[in-house]
Amino acid sequence: MKVTIIGLGLMGGSLALALKESKFSSHIIGVDQNKTHCDDALRLQLVDEIKSLNEAIAGSNMIVVATPVAASISIISTVLNNITKDQVVVDLGSTKAELCTHLNQHQNRSQYVAAHPIAGTENSGPQSAINDLYKNKKVVICEKDSSTDAALSLTLKMFNDIGMSVVFMTPVEHDKHLAYISHLSHISSFALGLTVLDLEKDEKNIFNLAGSGFSSTARLAKSSPDMWESIVMQNKANILPAISAYIHHLEKLKKDIEENNSENLINSMKKANEIRKIIKN
Amino acid sequence: MKVTIIGLGLMGGSLALALKESKFSSHIIGVDQNKTHCDDALRLQLVDEIKSLNEAIAGSNMIVVATPVAASISIISTVLNNITKDQVVVDLGSTKAELCTHLNQHQNRSQYVAAHPIAGTENSGPQSAINDLYKNKKVVICEKDSSTDAALSLTLKMFNDIGMSVVFMTPVEHDKHLAYISHLSHISSFALGLTVLDLEKDEKNIFNLAGSGFSSTARLAKSSPDMWESIVMQNKANILPAISAYIHHLEKLKKDIEENNSENLINSMKKANEIRKIIKN
Repeated sequence: MKVTIIGLGLMGGSLALALKESKFSSHIIGVDQNKTHCDDALRLQLVDEIKSLNEAIAGSNMIVVATPVAASISIISTVLNNITKDQVVVDLGSTKAELCTHLNQHQNRSQYVAAHPIAGTENSGPQSAINDLYKNKKVVICEKDSSTDAALSLTLKMFNDIGMSVVFMTPVEHDKHLAYISHLSHISSFALGLTVLDLEKDEKNIFNLAGSGFSSTARLAKSSPDMWESIVMQNKANILPAISAYIHHLEKLKKDIEENNSENLINSMKKANEIRKIIKN
Repeated sequence: MKVTIIGLGLMGGSLALALKESKFSSHIIGVDQNKTHCDDALRLQLVDEIKSLNEAIAGSNMIVVATPVAASISIISTVLNNITKDQVVVDLGSTKAELCTHLNQHQNRSQYVAAHPIAGTENSGPQSAINDLYKNKKVVICEKDSSTDAALSLTLKMFNDIGMSVVFMTPVEHDKHLAYISHLSHISSFALGLTVLDLEKDEKNIFNLAGSGFSSTARLAKSSPDMWESIVMQNKANILPAISAYIHHLEKLKKDIEENNSENLINSMKKANEIRKIIKN
């Protein structure tokens, strides 16, 4: 199986490693508009060769689009314009509604599978690729009935081979849920990073004190601005109410602290403890 | 060296394990008002025996207070009332200003060392104790000049033996800095947990989607309400402005998203990326 991966960052690079390790693919072609990324991907042996988009499409059975979502609609359309009937296109993007709405107009829509692996780290670029990023994680597939059986089967085999389990969802459901369980976490981390950096202007020396709690809550503030600006803008309809709900809970905690309302505060913290149902470890 | 540990939760239990492993202490006496905690601490071999407070004080060289901070002032005062001249008292509490102000009135203040190890997990109770909680972490010591040389030396040896490095700070500095680099992280996590749980009322099935980003930012929402209510209330003077600054940054991000101001959003995210200076890994 020859696979082209367009976008050789964390997601694309890690997929390349996993596809080789699982033997799903014997030959991986890399495409990236960033020349340094291409050089790094070759040097790190993530891909076997670098080609132009058109050459890569022509030479592969499967094309995976792993670019920031702002670029994905145009790139997937271009790929769909240029494939033959036995080729399959998949993307890994974190937003699905706008993408699926657009691509549903495309005459080759059925050769495309809309996917989103729920996996990632705060790092970006080819050098951040890790071979087990996807292992034992979930992947969401949207509008499976809009893909041919052949395209869907090959895609399911790919994700299965690298250790993922599949959840089917509509694009609208996907974007709503992800706003809460992923996108809001990133916004909260970016804001936490900004808040603490504001203080640092005067306090250069305190940060060797930052413990594991701070690292844990603020690490996503290291995430790629290009990637997250496009996710946030594409999913603003869901993210804005999520941020509002979050601010509401912060204001409520703040009010209880101001008013010395220990009972309310403890009750809220006990309620928040129920997150144990979701975060097992 | 015989050590009494008052409060056999995460902090006290983990200290017990580390003191035994490092051979700082050959015999550890546990004190806890919660009978189940006492039983668990014995069963888990965190402590060698359980005694009442007065019996424990009488039988030990060093007394470590590892209770929630709301209880610490009264317990440390009681311990200081009942010690002889060669005994040392240390606490591990997360707030220091109110505590130190109170204890500075005590006639035996010099036998006490005000300490705060920057270490923890979101778990609580004796069963959450881990032997390497403190290893390679920082411990803040406040008002070192208010302690006798003997008390300070023994305390420094204890923290050094379990792998910690020491930072000296005033109680006021400590509480201000910790509000930003620890307490605010907990508030942000509690609020994130509450926000997502609100949604869950209608959406029971989405949470198997929660990825590592969500777990990372929301895991502190599992933290002990008793412990955190008392930290937050004792340090409200610093925590309230920290929450306000945090909400300000969230509002600003929200406004930029609403107004499709991608340039501002990317600039804010790039600024937040500078948190890499603080969170190295």
